[in-house]
Amino acid sequence: MCGGVGSRFWPFSRTNVPKQFLDFFGTGKSLLQMTVERVSTLVDKDRIVLVTNESYADMIRQQLPEIKESNILLEPARRNTAPCICWAAHHIFAQDPEASIMTLPSDHLILKEMAFIKAMDEGMTFVENNDGLLTLGIKPTSPETGYGYIQKGMQVIGSDDTMKVKSFTEKPNLEMAKMLIATGEFFWNSGIFLWRAKTILEAFKKYAPEIAAHFDMGLPYYGTEKEQNFINDEFVNSPSISVDYAIMEKAENVYVKTVDLGWSDLGTWKALYETSPKNIEGNVTQNCKLISNDCSGTVFAIKGDKVIVAVGLKDYIVAENGNALLICPMSEEQKVRQMVNDVKSRFGEDYI
Amino acid sequence: MCGGVGSRFWPFSRTNVPKQFLDFFGTGKSLLQMTVERVSTLVDKDRIVLVTNESYADMIRQQLPEIKESNILLEPARRNTAPCICWAAHHIFAQDPEASIMTLPSDHLILKEMAFIKAMDEGMTFVENNDGLLTLGIKPTSPETGYGYIQKGMQVIGSDDTMKVKSFTEKPNLEMAKMLIATGEFFWNSGIFLWRAKTILEAFKKYAPEIAAHFDMGLPYYGTEKEQNFINDEFVNSPSISVDYAIMEKAENVYVKTVDLGWSDLGTWKALYETSPKNIEGNVTQNCKLISNDCSGTVFAIKGDKVIVAVGLKDYIVAENGNALLICPMSEEQKVRQMVNDVKSRFGEDYI
Repeated sequence: MCGGVGSRFWPFSRTNVPKQFLDFFGTGKSLLQMTVERVSTLVDKDRIVLVTNESYADMIRQQLPEIKESNILLEPARRNTAPCICWAAHHIFAQDPEASIMTLPSDHLILKEMAFIKAMDEGMTFVENNDGLLTLGIKPTSPETGYGYIQKGMQVIGSDDTMKVKSFTEKPNLEMAKMLIATGEFFWNSGIFLWRAKTILEAFKKYAPEIAAHFDMGLPYYGTEKEQNFINDEFVNSPSISVDYAIMEKAENVYVKTVDLGWSDLGTWKALYETSPKNIEGNVTQNCKLISNDCSGTVFAIKGDKVIVAVGLKDYIVAENGNALLICPMSEEQKVRQMVNDVKSRFGEDYI
Repeated sequence: MCGGVGSRFWPFSRTNVPKQFLDFFGTGKSLLQMTVERVSTLVDKDRIVLVTNESYADMIRQQLPEIKESNILLEPARRNTAPCICWAAHHIFAQDPEASIMTLPSDHLILKEMAFIKAMDEGMTFVENNDGLLTLGIKPTSPETGYGYIQKGMQVIGSDDTMKVKSFTEKPNLEMAKMLIATGEFFWNSGIFLWRAKTILEAFKKYAPEIAAHFDMGLPYYGTEKEQNFINDEFVNSPSISVDYAIMEKAENVYVKTVDLGWSDLGTWKALYETSPKNIEGNVTQNCKLISNDCSGTVFAIKGDKVIVAVGLKDYIVAENGNALLICPMSEEQKVRQMVNDVKSRFGEDYI
């Protein structure tokens, strides 16, 4: 899944180049490229399917020339993850009705690659042998308020880290997050799912029939040259909803595999700061030349060759890309979304 | 005088476009253009002589196409104000040995244009009738530590605002500045001078003979086609020193005309902040689109079309131009000079 657009990293990420396409850590590879590379160990590149917004097609082709054109699914509208997943499952099912699918966001950080590969490999074996919807649950390391939590239930016989899911909990407040962690029963919802194509399509029919109905109309077209045309006409009619709401929180056959992946969804500047290497003053610099004095805890994230001279910034975000500059205390980053809306309404789309 | 380069407004001003060439107040005119416009009321444009560094010749021609080429004196090296003034005096003397000269910096702010014109007009009359070096002394409005101070002495008979100068005082500390002002005898040194060409050239001979000697060698060439060639060979050999040190602080025939011009030398971001119109939150924006929250007392000075989203900045400087960005508390602006040197030594001239 690589069609998302977010304003949380504005202006480091921009509408025309969202987070997944950025070289976030200055490694020379975008988060998407790193994600594809990571799963390439598990599956042949010919069996990696990308679902993105049609406006990002050229960027995908440029960043991932090794992915064949028929594996790039172009959404004509933004409809959250459920329609995306439903289409991809149909697309894959049409080619192999027995296929199992790993479904992954493309803009996350995973530091423990070996643990990831092992978990995905075991997870695939699980879904091939069980009619279940499996999600990876991350062992929490701190009471994060930015993540959803999954409560584990009864252990699956023969597995030491896979359990039935007892409940899902939306982003808690800090006090609640502390309580959840203290129980030892709650894990972060990674948004990484494993299932057979057949299983997830059945789940759509049962729990999200209004979505299933739209995509069932395409059954004659999936895997044919008419697939994209059908989608171009019909996709926009699907409800916009996440797979968590539409399926996972309702289904009975949901399992969680608890893992430690060195994972972050990089959903906030704070997460980016915490997962990035820091200089001696405790600052993170993304792609910029910094001369600083009395600065600490600050992220400097810049696109393009630039020198920054900074004095006296404690725990700030300084982000720039093209015609937009953000300077904001990290503790106030939740204000950015609204301010970006203000930018849009006062100065226009060109700055977003 | 428009040859100066300073790093105090880096990166809003850059080596290739220093302060005098910038549209500092977003009025559509650079400080230099405003200075020329201001003196055009007093003298014909054919009698305005510009002295600048040769590297700024093209910018001068572009900003001031109305100034004739022979009135643009190009210094082949930076030697502070004394050599600049000595050359200009010779250049003018060669055309009219009886000429009087107004000598002005080109990067100052003067809000009271009528008072300026009146003062300069009266000042010219004074120097035409007195063998004196006249400087404009600004009535101080606050105990500024960034200015030199001039102590007034005996009043000139027949004038209510012109006095012999008793002493010059270099930039004082705050306590000293308060004391100076309390006496009522001290005025800010504006760096605006009036004198006859003959008078200042005599002063150079008497008080700065080592400079006079170099420029006297050019007597056969001033006003001829060989003048610039002579300067290109000889200028670099002159000592580098300000006219204040070389002449004004030593000469006997120095006078001060005390004036109220709404004057600032715009020597600091603080001065820029104080003299600029502010928005409702008390911020100054130079050429940028600002969405701010909980910001005050801050200058946002940007070259190029840009949106800034800023949160939580109190009394800061945010300045950007091309490949350089500065973020610094206004109270720390004295640190910038050293940091710009660091930029130069670590990353090279291209960022200065």
